[in-house]
Amino acid sequence: MIVHQVFFWLHNPDTDLQPVMDGCRKIGSVSTAKDFSVGVPAKTEKRDVIDDSYHIALTVYFDSIPDHDVYQEHPDHLQFIADHKAKWAKVQVYDFEV
Amino acid sequence: MIVHQVFFWLHNPDTDLQPVMDGCRKIGSVSTAKDFSVGVPAKTEKRDVIDDSYHIALTVYFDSIPDHDVYQEHPDHLQFIADHKAKWAKVQVYDFEV
Repeated sequence: MIVHQVFFWLHNPDTDLQPVMDGCRKIGSVSTAKDFSVGVPAKTEKRDVIDDSYHIALTVYFDSIPDHDVYQEHPDHLQFIADHKAKWAKVQVYDFEV
Repeated sequence: MIVHQVFFWLHNPDTDLQPVMDGCRKIGSVSTAKDFSVGVPAKTEKRDVIDDSYHIALTVYFDSIPDHDVYQEHPDHLQFIADHKAKWAKVQVYDFEV
């Protein structure tokens, strides 16, 4: 399975957290996605190895890289980026196979 | 649910990838963990936002922060760290609530 793990840092989380999370939920439902989750930093004890500076964690699961590739180019995904990219300061992606 | 997402960068992946992955699989089975997966970077198309420089992605799922805290202090987890920490150059953790 392919795990597409995305972290978003927002310019203005106070106003933009909910709209971007709502957008994440919409694109998580793109047909080739097997499953998805949208989260925020958990209040685990702070440790040097933990990065909790991001605002949103989007995880999308795919059966294969081709399924992931369809998602990347899906109109709903491109619309999500167009609608929200001005709101994020940084995006970090980790794609891994489990 | 609490997602404990860990990325490991190894000094010598050629020799140490399998032992550390095996260790990850062992600690993923600690009793308070709801589920876990151990992965490696997927061969998705390279993009500026993707970090594929790590060697292992360990994801452990918990029902609650107290369950996560039990795992952190579990003898199997502490033994894993003692056995393998010399092998990793960097560890990065993202804990998030979904």
